[in-house]
Amino acid sequence: MSINRKIYIVGAGPGDKDLITLKALKILKQATYVLVDDLVNQEVLSFCPQAQIVNIGKRGGCLSTPQEFINRLMVSRGKTEEVIVRLKGGDPFIFGRGGEEIQYLNAHGIDVEVIPGITSAMGIAAKHQFPLTHRAMVQGVTFITGHTIRENSVNWGALVQSKTTLAIYMGLKNIQKIITSLTESGMNKFMPVVIVQDGLRKNEQFIKTTFDSLSIIAKELNQDLPTIFFIGEVAGLASNQQLLERKNLREFG
Amino acid sequence: MSINRKIYIVGAGPGDKDLITLKALKILKQATYVLVDDLVNQEVLSFCPQAQIVNIGKRGGCLSTPQEFINRLMVSRGKTEEVIVRLKGGDPFIFGRGGEEIQYLNAHGIDVEVIPGITSAMGIAAKHQFPLTHRAMVQGVTFITGHTIRENSVNWGALVQSKTTLAIYMGLKNIQKIITSLTESGMNKFMPVVIVQDGLRKNEQFIKTTFDSLSIIAKELNQDLPTIFFIGEVAGLASNQQLLERKNLREFG
Repeated sequence: MSINRKIYIVGAGPGDKDLITLKALKILKQATYVLVDDLVNQEVLSFCPQAQIVNIGKRGGCLSTPQEFINRLMVSRGKTEEVIVRLKGGDPFIFGRGGEEIQYLNAHGIDVEVIPGITSAMGIAAKHQFPLTHRAMVQGVTFITGHTIRENSVNWGALVQSKTTLAIYMGLKNIQKIITSLTESGMNKFMPVVIVQDGLRKNEQFIKTTFDSLSIIAKELNQDLPTIFFIGEVAGLASNQQLLERKNLREFG
Repeated sequence: MSINRKIYIVGAGPGDKDLITLKALKILKQATYVLVDDLVNQEVLSFCPQAQIVNIGKRGGCLSTPQEFINRLMVSRGKTEEVIVRLKGGDPFIFGRGGEEIQYLNAHGIDVEVIPGITSAMGIAAKHQFPLTHRAMVQGVTFITGHTIRENSVNWGALVQSKTTLAIYMGLKNIQKIITSLTESGMNKFMPVVIVQDGLRKNEQFIKTTFDSLSIIAKELNQDLPTIFFIGEVAGLASNQQLLERKNLREFG
């Protein structure tokens, strides 16, 4: 029996299970052992009923499995004959720690194949019909984390000056500090903002507002839910008409 | 017979047809009329053999179908009973003009549903195994266009200061100007750079270098191919060992 020294690092996409790629689906159907991140939509596991599922994960600020343990588990399993998938929410390479895991696995003699996934901000923008770039408004989009292991490692001032759409992941805990930095750097107080919690899931919370109301609204948010803040002119294009048809809509500002 | 006043704006993903989402696939299988952008991998059309295919598109700097004609065609078709898909390369909302098309269609009484796609930079990063963010290196990634309809609408200096990974789409024509702006703003001359042309396609060209060599290399590139420049520490993680196994590899610097 040949020993499989390869692990698939696969992006599951955001909350809607049909946003997984066909390539990821084909690999899940062959998987025998799936290591699942805690931000993965559990419905995705219906694509691999034959596989042994191990729920692990590492969520900013929560008690969960240490990265070092996950790495060691992948290496020990990676030296068996199983078809091993490391399944991550969104995309493995946008805040997914895919890079760190590849470095560790390669250093331990295990090859990796990476399958990209729709990152949460893209899934949310599509659902709510606001583009992330727009020729007449904004020439780029920045995906940035608000949760960093080093202080001051994000230059919020430069991001304001860049005039790109900002999609801030994992920013809820530090949002008041982030708002202060953005304000000091000249963020327009009328800049549209969209806040989405539990994006694309059953209990998704959608809020559309403007930058000057963000500080007050952020205090009312459920601190335990995965949250993305979109800040930029394009956020103003999210269609009110369609939003009003949805449950859980709140609109401020 | 009920008249369908809805158009699906669908991201086909990048060059590898299996990187399409399951949701996009399901819609393509029902489509009767598909308006195809010229950056879409034509292999994706094997998912909708039943549909009438119309190749249209609008590629920066090339002669192709004007946006106004595309918009009018969508509106006239959108008022028939067909299941109409507007199929775009990558993601409709990252340099895909999806926002502009929604505005036009909504203004003409046609509803839209948007299905996201893997954008080219994410597909390329996954294939070549370099992450776009990395906790120890870089806290964000910016997708930016180098081809704009307004002069000076991108603040390259702020992007250098933002210290995010830069993925520059459609930047080849203006790359020497962009390099000058980045250099004047203090871009580190040893910053790793990855250049990919015809990403994820049969004839993909992959070049790994550093910022100080980019100007010379860019002069040798085929000006007619879709090109993405990645500039940032993470580009240095693209694995040499794996690259050497691939065809069409050139490494400089």
